[in-house]
Amino acid sequence: MAESKLGRLFVMSGPSGVGKDSVLTAMFEKLSGVVRSISSTTRSPRTGEVEGKDYRFLTREQFETGIAAGVFLEFAEYAGNLYGTPLAGVNNQRLDGNDVILKIEVQGAHRVKEAAPDATLIFIEPPSLAVLESRLRLRATDSEELIKARLKRATEELECVLWYDYRIVNDDLSAATDALRAIVIAERCRIR
Amino acid sequence: MAESKLGRLFVMSGPSGVGKDSVLTAMFEKLSGVVRSISSTTRSPRTGEVEGKDYRFLTREQFETGIAAGVFLEFAEYAGNLYGTPLAGVNNQRLDGNDVILKIEVQGAHRVKEAAPDATLIFIEPPSLAVLESRLRLRATDSEELIKARLKRATEELECVLWYDYRIVNDDLSAATDALRAIVIAERCRIR
Repeated sequence: MAESKLGRLFVMSGPSGVGKDSVLTAMFEKLSGVVRSISSTTRSPRTGEVEGKDYRFLTREQFETGIAAGVFLEFAEYAGNLYGTPLAGVNNQRLDGNDVILKIEVQGAHRVKEAAPDATLIFIEPPSLAVLESRLRLRATDSEELIKARLKRATEELECVLWYDYRIVNDDLSAATDALRAIVIAERCRIR
Repeated sequence: MAESKLGRLFVMSGPSGVGKDSVLTAMFEKLSGVVRSISSTTRSPRTGEVEGKDYRFLTREQFETGIAAGVFLEFAEYAGNLYGTPLAGVNNQRLDGNDVILKIEVQGAHRVKEAAPDATLIFIEPPSLAVLESRLRLRATDSEELIKARLKRATEELECVLWYDYRIVNDDLSAATDALRAIVIAERCRIR
């Protein structure tokens, strides 16, 4: 639905395993006019991930050509893979009047805020590091070594929360989804 | 329920007849941890209004003694009557961890923002002045002269919306209630 109003830009970050995708998926079912931006990545698809839905999967050569051509709003290397947000997709959605949510890590979020100061930054926190650790073990997709690396990284990421506009503690999926929905609706009412 | 966290302060304004009470009443049914502050006034109770629930009804002498003693967070004279917010009620609720919403007119809202810069100001707008006029006529409590005065006043109040943090257009009670609830929840997640 085309609208005359420019859509808002939201950025969501949070440690691996905190439940960002579950919260996003549940929120999209409860609120219209807000869409997810599809990131590009050079990492391999995980089981069940769909090209063009979860990510655009690119070769490193394709990705680096894109960087040189300035097609990314932000990009970052993480665990040996490149991740980036194509600018065109974000802008087209916003021009159509849709709010756009990017799911990106903390350094990328910081760069988006610099490039687009009106972006709203939302951090999803675990109730505690112990809870995060047990969720990562339940997910059972990562080696012990990777789990340890993710927990170390989570500690660093949690220190960046003060860059953000909002924090949501994902203690309960339903409450966290409601909070994310509330933030999007509230920002639609905000007077700048 | 006593909590260690200080409750937040919200101020709601909007023209007479815009539906502030309906939105507030519906919102309180849908969200816990947020309460209304009871204002004091020297005006006479309307039919159905209950002392200590809708307002504390004071004589002008009582009210003026209160002003001299500094018991009001803000007060204003409107249409020949004094209206004020007792500071003690607001502070006690906030210390108990409850968010508090004050329903006050624009000048009072401005003074609260000066006294408490962390207060969140919310303005309820009618979809148009024509809609507001038809609502005031439907309410059928006011004389033609008073309706005209309220519409003139509404025009002035609408010019003050830029003092506010949020605006809600009360086109549909359910959507406006959801927006008010969303703003309170979002502010609970906000990082200052």
